Amino acid sequence: MLLCDIGNTSYHFLKDDYDYKELVLEFNPKTIKEKVFYICVNHRVKKDLESLDNWIDISKKIDMSSYYITMGIDRIFACEAINDGLIIDAGSAITVDEVKDGVFQGGFIYPGIEAMRKSYTDISPALDLPFNFEVDLTTLPKNSVDAVSYGYLKTFYAQVVSRKMKIFLTGGDAKKFTTLFSNATIKERLIFDGMKKVIKLSLSSSR
Amino acid sequence: MLLCDIGNTSYHFLKDDYDYKELVLEFNPKTIKEKVFYICVNHRVKKDLESLDNWIDISKKIDMSSYYITMGIDRIFACEAINDGLIIDAGSAITVDEVKDGVFQGGFIYPGIEAMRKSYTDISPALDLPFNFEVDLTTLPKNSVDAVSYGYLKTFYAQVVSRKMKIFLTGGDAKKFTTLFSNATIKERLIFDGMKKVIKLSLSSSR
Repeated sequence: MLLCDIGNTSYHFLKDDYDYKELVLEFNPKTIKEKVFYICVNHRVKKDLESLDNWIDISKKIDMSSYYITMGIDRIFACEAINDGLIIDAGSAITVDEVKDGVFQGGFIYPGIEAMRKSYTDISPALDLPFNFEVDLTTLPKNSVDAVSYGYLKTFYAQVVSRKMKIFLTGGDAKKFTTLFSNATIKERLIFDGMKKVIKLSLSSSR
Repeated sequence: MLLCDIGNTSYHFLKDDYDYKELVLEFNPKTIKEKVFYICVNHRVKKDLESLDNWIDISKKIDMSSYYITMGIDRIFACEAINDGLIIDAGSAITVDEVKDGVFQGGFIYPGIEAMRKSYTDISPALDLPFNFEVDLTTLPKNSVDAVSYGYLKTFYAQVVSRKMKIFLTGGDAKKFTTLFSNATIKERLIFDGMKKVIKLSLSSSR
């Protein structure tokens, strides 16, 4: 089975146990002849794929009643993968979504590492500083690197742990957040897990 | 007495009880002939002012032992103004500084409203959304506007109130944060208060 999670910059494929990426700007979906089950947040690509019979949009299989209409389809499929927990998807944005007894409870969006770095840098060259992921979260900082690191990370950390849920880390920057959330489980293929689960359920109910 | 707090974009003057601003790019400090007590975070302006005898840099009057070397001088003077409390200076950046028994305890830096808005917008046009300062902070959001508002404001709010200190709000965006921190005291002239206090102390000790 070939799965594909399409973002704004890349097609992320999973073929059996092997995953790989192709750039949206370079890849031609017509080159694939086998059946592809996909989800897509990229509106332009989504439109192009509608004319290809072997590309099957599985977003239509979701019961949307507990989600909201403008919620990214990648967030929804990550939620579908778990029964209970908090999902941190750390990419260009960081989405935090809570699932209880298989039902989405709500979530929030925080800037990703690069976006937040740029935010500080744009304010002043004096704030063009790297984030220290090992910043002491127990005491207010007395140096500039820790002052921005605490601003970005402690605020986020405190909010996440206040939910008192099991934490699942996914997305391109997942590993960078393991220092902060030492008890979190890394699930790099959480969205694919959700896709497989939805396909399986949909196949069994259509029998 | 003429006071001036110089930032990256403007000279902020206080003459008796009247305050006004002049743009750094347009204003010529030589046009002022009376004595001016100033602080300045703008390195280029600071260099220019060194040659003018009537412009007196009062940053030298500060006992730096409890502060740190790269800390903005405006933050330091705001801290000098109070004995106990948490100062939120909401401008292009938001600085949060804690003072106990007149001693600086540490602080952190968070992006200001415009910088954070740009951060979300740069990630995706789908996140080009206004912040809702009245977002429900007690429940995880289920719509996009509240998902980014909660990401920006709840994380910050929770961190600030966890300090359990009296809150002082200052800076250009102070009023926008009064919905969030309803018990905070707005002190628009906190930095000038700190400047007056330091000048008074320095005059009395030099007698």
